[in-house]
Amino acid sequence: MRKIIHGPDTPLSLSVVARPEPGPGEVLIRVGAAGVNRPDLMQRAGLYPPPPGAPETMGLEVAGVVESVGPGVKRWRDGDEVCALLPGGGYATYAVAHEGSVLPIPKGLSVIEAAALPETVFTVWANVFEAGALKPGQTLLVHGGASGIGTTAIQMAKAYGARVFATAGDAAKVKLCEKLGATRGINYRAEDFEEIVRDAGGADVVLDMVGGPYVQKNLNLLNEGGRCVMIAFLKGPQADVNLMRLMLKRLTLTGSTLRSRAKEEKARLAREVELHVWPWIEAGLVKPVIDSTFPLADAEAAHARLQGGAHAGKIVLVA
Amino acid sequence: MRKIIHGPDTPLSLSVVARPEPGPGEVLIRVGAAGVNRPDLMQRAGLYPPPPGAPETMGLEVAGVVESVGPGVKRWRDGDEVCALLPGGGYATYAVAHEGSVLPIPKGLSVIEAAALPETVFTVWANVFEAGALKPGQTLLVHGGASGIGTTAIQMAKAYGARVFATAGDAAKVKLCEKLGATRGINYRAEDFEEIVRDAGGADVVLDMVGGPYVQKNLNLLNEGGRCVMIAFLKGPQADVNLMRLMLKRLTLTGSTLRSRAKEEKARLAREVELHVWPWIEAGLVKPVIDSTFPLADAEAAHARLQGGAHAGKIVLVA
Repeated sequence: MRKIIHGPDTPLSLSVVARPEPGPGEVLIRVGAAGVNRPDLMQRAGLYPPPPGAPETMGLEVAGVVESVGPGVKRWRDGDEVCALLPGGGYATYAVAHEGSVLPIPKGLSVIEAAALPETVFTVWANVFEAGALKPGQTLLVHGGASGIGTTAIQMAKAYGARVFATAGDAAKVKLCEKLGATRGINYRAEDFEEIVRDAGGADVVLDMVGGPYVQKNLNLLNEGGRCVMIAFLKGPQADVNLMRLMLKRLTLTGSTLRSRAKEEKARLAREVELHVWPWIEAGLVKPVIDSTFPLADAEAAHARLQGGAHAGKIVLVA
Repeated sequence: MRKIIHGPDTPLSLSVVARPEPGPGEVLIRVGAAGVNRPDLMQRAGLYPPPPGAPETMGLEVAGVVESVGPGVKRWRDGDEVCALLPGGGYATYAVAHEGSVLPIPKGLSVIEAAALPETVFTVWANVFEAGALKPGQTLLVHGGASGIGTTAIQMAKAYGARVFATAGDAAKVKLCEKLGATRGINYRAEDFEEIVRDAGGADVVLDMVGGPYVQKNLNLLNEGGRCVMIAFLKGPQADVNLMRLMLKRLTLTGSTLRSRAKEEKARLAREVELHVWPWIEAGLVKPVIDSTFPLADAEAAHARLQGGAHAGKIVLVA
């Protein structure tokens, strides 16, 4: 099979490697499409080592067809159309997933759209709905609203009955956020998101992938009992914060990553996602926003586009 | 009746004022003893204004005898021996409490011991057991282990089946923490609490009233999913923190104050405390540590002792 192998300072290119065999509880997927995610850039740069036992190669999500299943797999059989969250190795023509991280492709979605789902939907569910405990009628502020995670968070929160504010870096992205359901997109280069959200009654949950100076501003705009959930640090993890308001307003600052979670925990998330989010997708309330697709062999160009930051929504590799 | 009135830069002294009448849902308590708390020092210094509707005078907890009850009060009648959490005004011979913030004096406790309970027990319950979600078998780190809140937190966590580490500022206080049930008292002037707790397997919950440089150290020693709960900032609320570990280990940084909560919320806490903590007290598992008592007229001396920091446990005024 073909797979993207990466090394320090070398361009991404396809190599021919042995096709993996699914082990006990594992599913081998013939990859139709693979999502590109920011952690892939970090992994490539050596800043995000794979957790123990995970493939050394990149790719955290795929969609395709089940090629074969390992011993003990109950739900899936050859030919099933699926998407899956992976511990790694998705930039390939075949990839292995744990049975519990595999989900059916939602009705009405293409294999490209399905490949764009797992990383963002699992992340938004775990962070906005579980850690952030967003409730209908509450207000969510999403930073990076035009990113893969941002576009998903806006739609999921809206489908759930929450009010959404979203920040983005240019007028077209702001407009996209509003088209997806945000009450107000905020151009963070031109406007002060703290002031805008506070004047509009504050937020109950913030989903933040920026960090740095955003942390204090997030704490400043949260309402009593509000939760700020960190999922990345585009401006770095170091923050000089005054915690008085956190105490007085009983705020919560927390965060998480998906990849480090145990496979049992990912299986639990998959069940929640299938139960709560798949119906929103099949009802047309949540739809992956695809920025662009690239052939698997052009992974280098896909990375360049993600790194450049001009994209809106997800970048997907087609195998 | 007599009451301590405070003004800026004037010594505390007793004044004769009109006795308050209990309003609807309120209880008038003939005060036997009143607990002294650190927020009293802050209130006196003008740094902690009473919440709207609260008395301007100091005193967050008392024990004594019900003198009379206002309209609609169901549970209490004249002559009941009670202790109560107050919105203020406890440094007096009579004080008014909301019915829901009043609890019976636990069997076997003196009025002085009972006056030392509400502020610390409610605070520890709300922050260690609710916000911190401590579970039996988990590890709690308590800063200020020899303080009123510290001595209460050590005993409550121990009664619940948790392992406890506690920091304190001298050898006698460290010994007190261990006598109360801490596995290890840590002299923060001589030892590195971060290193000691990490080497012992880390903590699941930290109760912190120090802030400043402690915040990062707390995050560094928490285990996956751990919670750090801020209840005061003896070293200030400003903290320069690296949040990478918070994200990677799914930590939670939160905090709260008691006084600002609505009376319905205090009533809910009172029910939880009576259900869970009163039995520990009546079984002898949790016992208030009384540092010293002062006549109400000597509130100035009581404040000096609290401010000086040589105390261990609670300082109580006797009316």
